[in-house]
Amino acid sequence: MGYQNLTAAEWKTEYGKVLAEFEGWKARGLTLNMARGKPGKAQLDLVSDIMTVLTDPDDCMDEGVNARNYGELSGIPSARKLFAEILGCKPSQVFAAGNSSLQLMYDTVSKAYTHGLLHSESPWCRQEGLKWLCPAPGYDRHFKVTESFGFELVTVPMTENGPDMDVVEQLIRDPKVKGMWNVPKYSNPDGIIYSDETIERIAAMKPAAPDFLLMWDNAYCIHEFDGEFVPFPDILSLCEKHGNADMVFEYASTSKITLPGSGVACFACSEANMAYLTKLLGVQIISFDKMNQLRHVKYLRDKAHTLALMKKHAAILKPKFDMVTDTLAREIAPLGIAAWHTPKGGYFVSVNTAPGLAKRTLALCKEAGVVMTDAGATFPYGRDPQDSNIRIAPSLPPVEELEQAMAVFCCCLKLAALEQAAH
Amino acid sequence: MGYQNLTAAEWKTEYGKVLAEFEGWKARGLTLNMARGKPGKAQLDLVSDIMTVLTDPDDCMDEGVNARNYGELSGIPSARKLFAEILGCKPSQVFAAGNSSLQLMYDTVSKAYTHGLLHSESPWCRQEGLKWLCPAPGYDRHFKVTESFGFELVTVPMTENGPDMDVVEQLIRDPKVKGMWNVPKYSNPDGIIYSDETIERIAAMKPAAPDFLLMWDNAYCIHEFDGEFVPFPDILSLCEKHGNADMVFEYASTSKITLPGSGVACFACSEANMAYLTKLLGVQIISFDKMNQLRHVKYLRDKAHTLALMKKHAAILKPKFDMVTDTLAREIAPLGIAAWHTPKGGYFVSVNTAPGLAKRTLALCKEAGVVMTDAGATFPYGRDPQDSNIRIAPSLPPVEELEQAMAVFCCCLKLAALEQAAH
Repeated sequence: MGYQNLTAAEWKTEYGKVLAEFEGWKARGLTLNMARGKPGKAQLDLVSDIMTVLTDPDDCMDEGVNARNYGELSGIPSARKLFAEILGCKPSQVFAAGNSSLQLMYDTVSKAYTHGLLHSESPWCRQEGLKWLCPAPGYDRHFKVTESFGFELVTVPMTENGPDMDVVEQLIRDPKVKGMWNVPKYSNPDGIIYSDETIERIAAMKPAAPDFLLMWDNAYCIHEFDGEFVPFPDILSLCEKHGNADMVFEYASTSKITLPGSGVACFACSEANMAYLTKLLGVQIISFDKMNQLRHVKYLRDKAHTLALMKKHAAILKPKFDMVTDTLAREIAPLGIAAWHTPKGGYFVSVNTAPGLAKRTLALCKEAGVVMTDAGATFPYGRDPQDSNIRIAPSLPPVEELEQAMAVFCCCLKLAALEQAAH
Repeated sequence: MGYQNLTAAEWKTEYGKVLAEFEGWKARGLTLNMARGKPGKAQLDLVSDIMTVLTDPDDCMDEGVNARNYGELSGIPSARKLFAEILGCKPSQVFAAGNSSLQLMYDTVSKAYTHGLLHSESPWCRQEGLKWLCPAPGYDRHFKVTESFGFELVTVPMTENGPDMDVVEQLIRDPKVKGMWNVPKYSNPDGIIYSDETIERIAAMKPAAPDFLLMWDNAYCIHEFDGEFVPFPDILSLCEKHGNADMVFEYASTSKITLPGSGVACFACSEANMAYLTKLLGVQIISFDKMNQLRHVKYLRDKAHTLALMKKHAAILKPKFDMVTDTLAREIAPLGIAAWHTPKGGYFVSVNTAPGLAKRTLALCKEAGVVMTDAGATFPYGRDPQDSNIRIAPSLPPVEELEQAMAVFCCCLKLAALEQAAH
């Protein structure tokens, strides 16, 4: 029974049924959370051995670098090698830093704003009317960073293959357009892997701004939960091939490999950018936490060993994602009120409701004790023009709770759709 | 025999002797380092137990906060309490962060520049001709931060009681003067403890700039190496008393308590500033490394237990500082070519040579294989108007090496003085 063509009588029956279900959920006083891509307890427990890999001063040397003292601003050699192997670039292109890739991204934008990038004519704070490309739906924290620095956020539609490059290639002719956010593998929230053609077009872009900043947040570079590791091109060498070596900064972290908030983050860039940024970063910090870097290298060892760990994460995550997509298929698909992606990696399921249902659905969820990412969050300025996109983050709750949360969500989506179709 | 009134013959004999000694040192091909306030190996070995205080998931909860997952931007409750106890302020005034207090200081200045502070009329990047007060000799990394943001650095003379407040009170009448660096306890490099009167005058300042930023880097807050812990006023409550609650940001870290570069840093400020900064920081980072915060709290426990650890550091440091000041007293004092402080805490001995000798002395040291902080580094723009101040950092080398390094230093200082007095 689709919801599009209900008779008044059918609507009344269905509305009564769904409303009663909703009241039932409300009465249970649940407190469930599908708001953020937080790993669940079972995932955290997977990696407990990382706590005991460094126990003795003799464990703390790394190729002649003493992890216990100041120094080695760009990170210990073995950490730079590990990230380089995972990302497919060179260790000399990797800066291993602190616990947060978001902080590194913020800092790159902030440095461009205060000091300028390698090819900037002036710091961005001395330029007016700057714009930033935001493929949407996208990651709300990305958008907030550039919003915070006063950029005009320009929405670029996402396709099944990544950002719509026809639109991008048009927009970058404007020298005021200074950069673009990307989560190229298992995009947040759609779980899309940019196609090879899209990536090639991105690497080959000829932006009017000489200091265009391609932000390549490879947050989910090895984060398959369904199937084998999917190889992915090295954006640094692709950009270099197209004469754009200094255009791109890539980011990654172990936040969803080891412990969120206590992992190691890195950025990767051309050696010229590395020299430029390292000089600026040298004013800001003496060195990052090399003990934690070394702890990670000793625990993760190399790419193959890290991928084996990711299989264990996958075994925990897949039943949760299956629960989400199975429930949607059973409860929502027949009604014709929403569509969604079925990702094989990353941390989200992106649901597109019929226009005008997202806000109301999430308000109802909240009433029933299920917290989700705010409607609109996946669009610049938190404004979804269709009021349609909802990001589901199923990783944190145990499967039993997730089952309840998804039941509540489907109930609320139905109720919102029925309210909209009120006879 | 002072060097001031040597006869030509005396000069010749002495010069020959000192030059021969210098050549002897050079021939030994030493590589010694007294450049930076790096703790030595014996100090690092003191704290090895910190590596094993967290070994099990059950260790990782802190008053209901799970240190293993995202969240709790301003730090785990117990870390905020520990720093508050050490600094004498309230836990609600403490933000426990990552591994670097320098990064927090940089970030405060950067935020003022890009977004403005709580009482800013506009972000500092929109204002021209801004100035910054630099008590000198001072910490080169402080000066570099504000130099990097384009401030005109204004030197304030240091007295035995801290910065010359007559000068400061005059300078802050200029609304372009936006802030001031301070290391108020065991100042870098002089090892001076600001007097109560100086601190009171600082807290009571009435700067013309509404967003004047009093940078209070309490880097050596519990870092006595000679004698008992010296209590120190809480600058936050003093500023509040004088109606300046939002003027001050205080910084501290465990870099020289546990492991340099792998410690925990914090800032402390008024609750209004905390709310303002936390909002801005929420755009930049999800949370800091709470595992490392918890590791520190479990290891350091409380102020009394931390002070007991500082006694162990002191037992390692005091012989090194004694070696420096004893050698200076024996080799240099009789010659009348330099004066110095004899600090009871901190990480440095500050030597003031007769004018014009610092650069040459350190160039000679370098020739003989002893690396020291560059001459001039303790002044804004690296320019010591007297070419006189030299910062000795005796903490890193073992005592035997330090003995050699100090012998080389004294030889080079003598040689520089004799060259200057050449007949």
